[in-house]
Amino acid sequence: MTDAAQAGETRVAVCQICPDVDDPGSTLQRTVDAIEDAAARGANVVVLPELSSSGYMFRDKAELRSLAQKRDGRAVTAWAGLAQRHDLVVVAGLAEDDGELFNSAVLIDAGELRAVYRKAHLWDSEKTVGFTPGDDEPPVIETAHGRIAVMICYDAEFPEWVRLPALAGADLLCVPANWPLYPRPAGERPGEIIRAQANAAVNRMFVAVADRAGTERGQQWTGGSVIIDADGYPVAGPTLGAPTTLLADLRLSAARDKHISAHNDVHADRRPELYRAWLP
Amino acid sequence: MTDAAQAGETRVAVCQICPDVDDPGSTLQRTVDAIEDAAARGANVVVLPELSSSGYMFRDKAELRSLAQKRDGRAVTAWAGLAQRHDLVVVAGLAEDDGELFNSAVLIDAGELRAVYRKAHLWDSEKTVGFTPGDDEPPVIETAHGRIAVMICYDAEFPEWVRLPALAGADLLCVPANWPLYPRPAGERPGEIIRAQANAAVNRMFVAVADRAGTERGQQWTGGSVIIDADGYPVAGPTLGAPTTLLADLRLSAARDKHISAHNDVHADRRPELYRAWLP
Repeated sequence: MTDAAQAGETRVAVCQICPDVDDPGSTLQRTVDAIEDAAARGANVVVLPELSSSGYMFRDKAELRSLAQKRDGRAVTAWAGLAQRHDLVVVAGLAEDDGELFNSAVLIDAGELRAVYRKAHLWDSEKTVGFTPGDDEPPVIETAHGRIAVMICYDAEFPEWVRLPALAGADLLCVPANWPLYPRPAGERPGEIIRAQANAAVNRMFVAVADRAGTERGQQWTGGSVIIDADGYPVAGPTLGAPTTLLADLRLSAARDKHISAHNDVHADRRPELYRAWLP
Repeated sequence: MTDAAQAGETRVAVCQICPDVDDPGSTLQRTVDAIEDAAARGANVVVLPELSSSGYMFRDKAELRSLAQKRDGRAVTAWAGLAQRHDLVVVAGLAEDDGELFNSAVLIDAGELRAVYRKAHLWDSEKTVGFTPGDDEPPVIETAHGRIAVMICYDAEFPEWVRLPALAGADLLCVPANWPLYPRPAGERPGEIIRAQANAAVNRMFVAVADRAGTERGQQWTGGSVIIDADGYPVAGPTLGAPTTLLADLRLSAARDKHISAHNDVHADRRPELYRAWLP
């Protein structure tokens, strides 16, 4: 058992690496190095960015297809080997080729591929470069290290989407992301982090975002990786910008108590019968 | 026309006053003084806290009933007179006696009572002291100063509830609140403000929260009033704690463009057909 596990906690690592669409070999190696490093530091759960096997800034669909992989391809095989060797959960973004192309994320638990989630809410040029949006709910996987859910980047900007795994009992939501850098007022956090904090608090669920670092074909990235507790406050990061690995020991069982006052429970207090106007 | 109106903007005031359940006369007078002051400073929309006619810390249902008023009672009559005299929109919290007792907020537009909203998600002792939860959606009222929606305090902790007026076209969500003071990590904003920022950004809608100040029967309040733009960043406040009036000139028409990238629109990108698992 790791130190964290002995204390009833889960050590979560988010690895803010620099995938590079112009350098596929180094890109895969960086994911391997990041997982090895996190394992050496006692991590039980390791989260890598969106499209961490390929980079993001595809020129066109042909290039995307050339960098996409099957779910039993090189990247997943490498990650599964590491997950097995170190008894880890790995959550990592993958450009998935299943005939159609998906912006996916895999959840690997101790060597076994437990879930492949396909991004349901596509961002900007993802809509034009050839990705197909996924139609399936975010998975919630019971692992030895907690009940872990997965969604990808822009998905987390839809609080109704975040509710689904939260209501299904997720303790920890892992979010591989590639957050483009936008201007913001001085002294303010990136808005994506603020929304991730809100997602955590309104569900009393831990959230671990692995953003990417660096600049790729002229696109600057936020580098806003962060681990947020069930009260909605960061417990590791954000550091903003540079490659880094953030670690936090989380008592994930805290997410199973949704009370926030003597008479309030963030899930039981919902009134879904009043929310029907949401639907088409 | 006011200065703000001439520039195509709406001047919004949030008045962080101190209602006091032990001093009903001063409590009503403070609302009158706050509206007069905001009017003198050119406000077009004035937002007062939750239960601003009565205070909050009711001992029991009998005391609540003794301080509750009809919707044509003294408080609404006073506010409507000021709204008419100064050509204002007033949004203010009212302990409403309609046989049953409601934690309500009124929207008065230039002297006319346009809406009474009843809090749908009750907080803590509100559930035991005798309030009945409301069952109606937050109103969205077309006024001379923009399309204005209203909900109350804990309601805004439910992003699905916030979506309803946002999807119905609200430019500005006014939130009378009484935020109890909770501990938070050093350097962090109150979580309620973070969630209000998220609500604004995921809907590209302005949000104006009028919190209360002071201590009442031992309960400390956050005093976290804030005016937030459609990008989710504060443009006035938070100052935290003391009585104050915050003012901001808002170009509310910005809320009618939901685009955040060439190919993304925060409302059109929703996939409500996938959100059905929300419902009972």
